Amino acid sequence: MNAELVTIGKQAKQAATTLAQLPTTAKNAALMAIATALEEGAAQVVAANQADLKAAEGKLAAKFNDRLLVNAERIDQMAAGLRQVAALPDPTAVIDRGWVTPTGLKIVQKRVPLGVIGIIFEARPNVTVDAAGLTLKSGNAVILRGGKEALQTNQALVKIIRESLAKQGIDPNAVQLITDPSHALAQEMMSLTGYIDVLIPRGSQRLIQAVVQHATVPVIETGAGNCHLYVDASADLKMAEEIVVNAKVQRPSVCNAAEKLLVHRQTAARFLPRVAERLTGLGVELRGDERARSIVPTIKPASDEDWTTEYNDLIMAVKVVDNLDEAIDWINRYSTHHSESIITKDLVSAQAFQDRVDSACVYVNASTRFTDGFEFGFGAEIGISTQKLHARGPMGLAQLTTIKYQITGQGQVRE
Amino acid sequence: MNAELVTIGKQAKQAATTLAQLPTTAKNAALMAIATALEEGAAQVVAANQADLKAAEGKLAAKFNDRLLVNAERIDQMAAGLRQVAALPDPTAVIDRGWVTPTGLKIVQKRVPLGVIGIIFEARPNVTVDAAGLTLKSGNAVILRGGKEALQTNQALVKIIRESLAKQGIDPNAVQLITDPSHALAQEMMSLTGYIDVLIPRGSQRLIQAVVQHATVPVIETGAGNCHLYVDASADLKMAEEIVVNAKVQRPSVCNAAEKLLVHRQTAARFLPRVAERLTGLGVELRGDERARSIVPTIKPASDEDWTTEYNDLIMAVKVVDNLDEAIDWINRYSTHHSESIITKDLVSAQAFQDRVDSACVYVNASTRFTDGFEFGFGAEIGISTQKLHARGPMGLAQLTTIKYQITGQGQVRE
Repeated sequence: MNAELVTIGKQAKQAATTLAQLPTTAKNAALMAIATALEEGAAQVVAANQADLKAAEGKLAAKFNDRLLVNAERIDQMAAGLRQVAALPDPTAVIDRGWVTPTGLKIVQKRVPLGVIGIIFEARPNVTVDAAGLTLKSGNAVILRGGKEALQTNQALVKIIRESLAKQGIDPNAVQLITDPSHALAQEMMSLTGYIDVLIPRGSQRLIQAVVQHATVPVIETGAGNCHLYVDASADLKMAEEIVVNAKVQRPSVCNAAEKLLVHRQTAARFLPRVAERLTGLGVELRGDERARSIVPTIKPASDEDWTTEYNDLIMAVKVVDNLDEAIDWINRYSTHHSESIITKDLVSAQAFQDRVDSACVYVNASTRFTDGFEFGFGAEIGISTQKLHARGPMGLAQLTTIKYQITGQGQVRE
Repeated sequence: MNAELVTIGKQAKQAATTLAQLPTTAKNAALMAIATALEEGAAQVVAANQADLKAAEGKLAAKFNDRLLVNAERIDQMAAGLRQVAALPDPTAVIDRGWVTPTGLKIVQKRVPLGVIGIIFEARPNVTVDAAGLTLKSGNAVILRGGKEALQTNQALVKIIRESLAKQGIDPNAVQLITDPSHALAQEMMSLTGYIDVLIPRGSQRLIQAVVQHATVPVIETGAGNCHLYVDASADLKMAEEIVVNAKVQRPSVCNAAEKLLVHRQTAARFLPRVAERLTGLGVELRGDERARSIVPTIKPASDEDWTTEYNDLIMAVKVVDNLDEAIDWINRYSTHHSESIITKDLVSAQAFQDRVDSACVYVNASTRFTDGFEFGFGAEIGISTQKLHARGPMGLAQLTTIKYQITGQGQVRE
């Protein structure tokens, strides 16, 4: 095991023990102080970011350049985000429940921080500040490993965060950045059992799958969204059209955007031509099965791969299904279990869809784009879990905690 | 990927979709039917078990033979366990909470089954019936992989369970047994992503660590219990003595038995001689640090390895500490984070211990032996989680569920 990494792990573990005991007021004061320090240190961050951008020149596609960019406005957004987190309730200041056993033991189930959280992410430097803010508020230490393209920016951000923590009397090792950009070190980080309690990868599907494959530390899988819309036989077609357009076009690059459209065969002939015209007019490329193409010949043929692909782009695959059962079976087979929606006026269809579709968020008559920590009212979001263990769907501060049983007796022994 | 294993996985996934929709009454009727069928088929099971025992003759230590043994009394216990599970509330018949967002979306957070649970275990055939009962009640399909020593017994048990399910109109693939005893297949099972939602290893520390190391499917780590007792300066020494004896001696083979005894230096001279005499009289071998041995010279020297070892036996290691802080730091460093207890009359010590010891169950003035799903009032136990993700401490039926958000709108789209 890499010695530097073990040192980072030990320091994080140590910081976590003190963080877990900090009162909420101290954590909030630190969040506010970091926000101010970021605003005051904006010039340093922007300079570091310029260096990162220059180094990446010609190597990254335009959309990656935009993700990497940090300017004064984005620093203001980071600072505003920290102040919002400061205003949220402390997720560890919660006692879930308590009871007294027949032998008189008083058991209290209390929320506590997870401990040390590892975040492995790509080029977006705002993840550094977001993750530091959310983990600090929830009493966790964090070890960050960002993409090498953003290294100088992340170093500048973490320097400001750590200096603010130290000034507030908080162990700066609560927030640590891994500066060795090698893949070997990232892989060792995924096996840092005993020091890292949970790994949360944030970024592309490839990154997330690499972490799932290699980690021995428990992982929360986030973000894969091959989301489906199903337009039922009884759907209000105007409503369906608006939902399809919104779910596909409003922000196609995000995980809760719809990628697939299933249409009941009784509706297809009326619905597909109008929605295809609308989507095509908005720049969406449509791909479809034979039945869809027989109704709208401009739809391109879909390959097998299309049905499993998360495009994150202005592309949508369309399929005509015989009935609700086929729609549900199809979704359960090809979905990433993120978000799906049925558009229907039929109560039985709505109930069957919500009960039988095995995804984190199952909608009736609404856009999948609402799957989001802020839209759900959580006030923050660390990611959207597509696994079933620990957290499912939008993850807010509560999902960065675990429980502890505190049991108080008067000398009880077991018979 | 092994074709037989993929078939098992697909069958389990299919069974899980129907199980998840079964009403509680149908699941309870099936549990009762399996209980009766086990009683009626006891002779077949005992015969299969005799064959297993005969095959293992001379190869297993006596304690493993006892674990492997199934007789009429143990079958009655299995059947009684199933009837108890039938009487428990259905953990999926729960809506945790619901709310309406500012845009008028009605969000309901509902409990649902995890899906397909993989159980990898060793020689105890009762795990087969216990696990089948708990997973059925919680609406999950289960894939069982037991130790090869118990294969014929497990096959006889699973045959009875599957026949009962089929008679009740339930897909028998809800309960499947892997009969290929090879390690290679077990390792493939640990990577059956897409078919198995959660793996729960049950058995020795070696087995559990092998699963943690090799699995790409999410794992719930259970059962490692290097549990500590700390006798504070202000402890009631009579109470401390009874708790130490109970936690060590009442059932030394289980994970919630105490393995380590830490004693405050101000208490050690008075407490150690009396507790050592009592423990030694009950057959406990004591090992200790220099300070403990200077007080009770019959204590053998402890090695470094002792402090991390879960003996599961009549052995206890003893250490004298300077103060509460040293006790807490020591526990956080060497414990498996299962269960620890302080014996004290001091409120500040009690609070600090419960808040700062990072274990699933932290006791004041009680034996660690109470860490148990039944003692906690959960009515069942699938294991005791020593990790922080998803479940921590005793796991009952609720821990075999996840959540789903069911969101109902009237055509909402995102602005």
